[in-house]
Formats: sequence, C-alpha cells, structure tokens
Amino acid sequence: MMINDYDLHKVEETQKTTKNPKRPQTPQPENSNMTGSPCGACKFLRRKCVRGCVFAPYFCHEQGATHFAAIHKVFGASNVSKLLAHLPVSDRCEAAVTISYEAQARLQDPIYGCVAHIFALQQQVSFPFIRLTMFKTLADFCLYYTS
Amino acid sequence: MMINDYDLHKVEETQKTTKNPKRPQTPQPENSNMTGSPCGACKFLRRKCVRGCVFAPYFCHEQGATHFAAIHKVFGASNVSKLLAHLPVSDRCEAAVTISYEAQARLQDPIYGCVAHIFALQQQVSFPFIRLTMFKTLADFCLYYTS
Repeated sequence: MMINDYDLHKVEETQKTTKNPKRPQTPQPENSNMTGSPCGACKFLRRKCVRGCVFAPYFCHEQGATHFAAIHKVFGASNVSKLLAHLPVSDRCEAAVTISYEAQARLQDPIYGCVAHIFALQQQVSFPFIRLTMFKTLADFCLYYTS
Repeated sequence: MMINDYDLHKVEETQKTTKNPKRPQTPQPENSNMTGSPCGACKFLRRKCVRGCVFAPYFCHEQGATHFAAIHKVFGASNVSKLLAHLPVSDRCEAAVTISYEAQARLQDPIYGCVAHIFALQQQVSFPFIRLTMFKTLADFCLYYTS
C-alpha cells in the first residue's frame, strides 16, 4: 500500500510542528461556503452548502469533492457528519484527514484497508530489532576483547 | 491505542499460517442463520436473518452484535454489506475483521482511529534504525581494532 498518501502526510507535517503527537497544530480552516461556491462535500452530494456546514472547512470546492467521494462510499456522509459534529472544532481537521486516509486506503485495498499499512509497519518494527540484537552482541563481544 | 485487539489478532494468527501475508488462510465460517438464531448483525439490526446473509458467517449470535454495533456506527451496515458482497467469499472474513478493527479504533479514538496505531508504529520503526546504526558503527570500530 502507498505510504506517501497526501492526506496522511498533511497530518504528519502538522505533527512535526508540535511536541504532542496526539494534538497537532490545526491549520486554519478555510470555510469555502463563505466564498459563495459549495464545499467539496456539498458539491459531491449536490446539496446547498449552508453557513456552518460541518464539512466546509475541510473539503475545498476543487479537490474536496474527490476526497469526499471516497469518504461517502466507505463511511457514509451522515456517519462522518455526526462524528465531526461531536468533536471540538480544533480536532475536526485531523479527524477529517484521517477519515479521508482510511477511506482511500479501503478503496485501494478493500480487504485490509489501512490495516495493510499496520501489518507492513509491524514487520518493519520486528526486523530492525533482530539486527539490533545481533550487532549489540557483536559490539559487546568486541568490547570485551579490546578492554 | 491498544494493539492487542482481539479482532486484529485473529487476522495476524491466520497470517502466521501462510507464506503470503496478503492472503491469509480463511477460517471456516459458521453460518449462524443455519442454527435458527439470527447472526450478530441481524440481531443488532433487529431484522430477520435470511439464508445467504452476507454478515452471518462473520458475526456470531453472541458476541457478533457487539462487534457489529461499532461497525454500524462508524461505517453503516449498508456500506459494509456492499463492500463484503463485492469481495470473493474467501476474502470476506479478513475484510470483516479489519473493518471491525477500524470501527473499534475509531470509537476509541474519534480523531485518529487506527491511524494512531500507524503513527505509533512509524515512530517505533525509526527509533531502532538509529540505535542499529550506532551499534553497527561501534561493531565496525571494534572489529577494525581486533583484526
């Protein structure tokens, strides 16, 4: 599965700017329904984008509709709307990004979704530890004979 | 986030029994609607569990309803039904398990869901590599002076 996903990188980039990886600095949302054009979600759903639309700050008019199509297919617009509405505004951007990432991963790999990424990382985690133990043993051995 | 998730372990255990991690051996499904009682999904949805129910082999009457509650809240029964129905029968068990895992992760962590697990693993991947490089340099140094 592709790791260099655009949406996930957006969250990772925001995480680099903060000491707490669970609470990244949220980029200032742009409420696209203030510009007159509907947000990407409302454009996809072919509905009027009202003031205070829960999707508008996170799904722009241009690319937002494509991202929202995956979300709607996997999670359903209603479920995601409820999930975002129950979160504090400061957390919604990250939630929208991770939901978008999960949805795209599930469309790319309908069996495993982003869990394929977890399995791949788990294999990477265990492999360096085996090599690390090997080199540590060798280093200890050499240090014993040079001391 | 808890890594020792029951459902994810079920997939990992099946993965250990096969050389191809993307196609684990599927456990023989038990079609609960053959026993007369509705499957966990139909029990939760309060509907009749018909013969050939797409959920029945993967959501047992007892614990299945609890697992399905999370799935229904996050993905929606209809979306998951369509997703499973579009997969070959041999792949549906793993899809049901990974969907259940994602749903439970999203309920536990509404902002990051299972992406929190990916971030945690990414940090674990980078950390051993730094230590590995350090020990390799030390081992090379010692080998140079003992040879």
